Amino acid sequence: MDTTLFSLWKSIFTTLASYGNQGTRGMERLSWSEEFMKAQHTLMEMTQKEGLASEIDAMGNLWVTLEGTDKSLPPLYIGSHVDTVPSGGAFDGALGITSALAILIHWKRTGFAPRRTVHAIGFAEEEGTRFGLCCLGSQAISGELKDRDPESIQKGGKSLAQWLREAGLSGNPFQPRLDAKGAFLEFHIEQGGTLEADGLPLGIVSAIVGIDRFIVTVTGQANHAGTTEMKLRHDALAAASDSIVALYKRALAHNRKYVATVGELTVTPGAANVIPGKVVFTLELRSETLATMEAAMAAFRQEMGRVEKTYGVSASIEKLDRIDPVPMNDHLMEIFEKAAEKEQVPYEKMPSWAGHDAMIMGRHLPTAMLFVPSIGGISHSPKESTDDDAIKKALSVLESAMRSLGEGA
Amino acid sequence: MDTTLFSLWKSIFTTLASYGNQGTRGMERLSWSEEFMKAQHTLMEMTQKEGLASEIDAMGNLWVTLEGTDKSLPPLYIGSHVDTVPSGGAFDGALGITSALAILIHWKRTGFAPRRTVHAIGFAEEEGTRFGLCCLGSQAISGELKDRDPESIQKGGKSLAQWLREAGLSGNPFQPRLDAKGAFLEFHIEQGGTLEADGLPLGIVSAIVGIDRFIVTVTGQANHAGTTEMKLRHDALAAASDSIVALYKRALAHNRKYVATVGELTVTPGAANVIPGKVVFTLELRSETLATMEAAMAAFRQEMGRVEKTYGVSASIEKLDRIDPVPMNDHLMEIFEKAAEKEQVPYEKMPSWAGHDAMIMGRHLPTAMLFVPSIGGISHSPKESTDDDAIKKALSVLESAMRSLGEGA
Repeated sequence: MDTTLFSLWKSIFTTLASYGNQGTRGMERLSWSEEFMKAQHTLMEMTQKEGLASEIDAMGNLWVTLEGTDKSLPPLYIGSHVDTVPSGGAFDGALGITSALAILIHWKRTGFAPRRTVHAIGFAEEEGTRFGLCCLGSQAISGELKDRDPESIQKGGKSLAQWLREAGLSGNPFQPRLDAKGAFLEFHIEQGGTLEADGLPLGIVSAIVGIDRFIVTVTGQANHAGTTEMKLRHDALAAASDSIVALYKRALAHNRKYVATVGELTVTPGAANVIPGKVVFTLELRSETLATMEAAMAAFRQEMGRVEKTYGVSASIEKLDRIDPVPMNDHLMEIFEKAAEKEQVPYEKMPSWAGHDAMIMGRHLPTAMLFVPSIGGISHSPKESTDDDAIKKALSVLESAMRSLGEGA
Repeated sequence: MDTTLFSLWKSIFTTLASYGNQGTRGMERLSWSEEFMKAQHTLMEMTQKEGLASEIDAMGNLWVTLEGTDKSLPPLYIGSHVDTVPSGGAFDGALGITSALAILIHWKRTGFAPRRTVHAIGFAEEEGTRFGLCCLGSQAISGELKDRDPESIQKGGKSLAQWLREAGLSGNPFQPRLDAKGAFLEFHIEQGGTLEADGLPLGIVSAIVGIDRFIVTVTGQANHAGTTEMKLRHDALAAASDSIVALYKRALAHNRKYVATVGELTVTPGAANVIPGKVVFTLELRSETLATMEAAMAAFRQEMGRVEKTYGVSASIEKLDRIDPVPMNDHLMEIFEKAAEKEQVPYEKMPSWAGHDAMIMGRHLPTAMLFVPSIGGISHSPKESTDDDAIKKALSVLESAMRSLGEGA
């Protein structure tokens, strides 16, 4: 392991962490805020001083480029996001972009010239804190927003166009600029506890899971909690509870195949002495494959049929939206696997259970991701952390894989 | 069956129902409102015209008295409440007081002079809509409020004293005025579906159930609904749901022994993509015996212990309050049973699963209650209703029992 690369990474990471540092309240670098823009400008100037070509695009994404020696080869992209959630952690997003910059600077300093041009990208607005829309920076460069008007994306009376103007950005923020023959890599913290539970320092992502969201409404009959004997009840909450337990138990029996979550639930009328007449809850499923999500939902519908009969209630299940799973590229995963073997870093293949810029990029380009463990599985929290040792190992694998790809692999 | 008594009842009932009638929005005669006071004055004047002694006390309760011929015998009280809930029904409370008045007028008109003095009471504020305190009228006359200040009972900045002043009432509203050697009867709609389910026109109440209320808090760990695999979750809602199903199933297996209700439940943080970290819910138990409630709660605590282990959560159960069960008087129940047999009205003995003025009175005097079926078990609703035939039968039983008691039984 090259300790020079790790030291270089650490210094860039520490620099980035000085923008938006709220102490015990964590890291707060919301897209296009003063702190966010200062961070992007600092990273741009730092890399320019190293002789790399750097710019900030009209969306606020940072681009740092190391030109390849063979212009006929398609480019390699590597990046992650610079923005954070409110009171977030220092590693989410920041780990990936600072690692990419560290590798480019390291190569430049050591005179390694890849055949392929490598672009490091520090994305804006992956977290979706401004408009509830995630991955806006990667959506913009991949062309997914090219038919949208930045004035039309609004929240709380403020548009994206206004945010960009106030950040001193100009030009068309939705201009596509990816070469579809290229490839994209992202290095990120796991944000879950699987690697830690398995005692492994590295994950090679197999796919970014899809998400199905539903609203479930259970309708019974509100009634007096004293005078209505148990056999004459149509208790919407007891019924909903039964269905939630069934959902949970089946998902637990399929641990790591899919996750199922009921995160919001409301009871009507909601009084201690009234039998609930109506319960509405959200149901979210995530899996690597649509077939798994569909099987989980079929099982839930069957359980709900049983619940309707048992409790004398009626249930409706409304689909809110679906995000399709994005499988990672086989060739790129193989390059990561070979690099991990070469560097003797133990790893497992695993899905990413959260969305990332790689989810957007993977719809347009061959894409792959590397994960390092999150201590305690904690993320989006000031307590978010990852061991230096895991980062060292992952950096060596990432650098080795990038070197192969840079050479045209 | 005496159709004269039924016709008389019907005309008084129709008169009372003309005060607070909101059409399809039901009956609204909130205590001390203009409509409530007009109703009490109309009933007072109507009975005075029949030669009965009537007055409205300082609390707003109506008293109608038929003097007995033997002053050495203790009095018989019979009554129910005149107030309604918002958008309530025509029968809740009104059935009982109008029946009592019909019987006294019928006796007066037909020259029947009981040995015992009979007081019919039309109670104020049984429903607790003004201050969230039920049965204030019966609490006042039974002496339960004698150490309270009517200025100190407040809600929304308005005191009981102010309500009473605005209703034109004066004097000490909390003056006890019951003779503890007397007895109390109440005739009421069941407000549940048990008599209807059993196809019976009459219920003789064995006890007014006690009520235990608890707040249950289940604490797990809020976490990312994607990256937290099922086996690493501490899902407070799945855990709470499991405990609610267990509570419901045991209560169902003990149908008519006790009821258990979870009527309010809140989830924190409450987002579709966050595993619930905390769930708080109310738990209400009702039964004729404290032992049954305590056994139900012991079983729930045991289930909660299982749930804590299964889901990796912790639970706390806080007792909010207890209302003790009030058994009805054996002698009075026997008089009702004999009257029902004499009048050939089939009946069952059953607890009252709701509170009534008879619950307060039963703490101080021998007390008994009669129920008639509620169509569809519906109450506190404009749809509240009871068949004329059941009312006819119950009136004959009530009149017969009162006649026996009036004669000194």
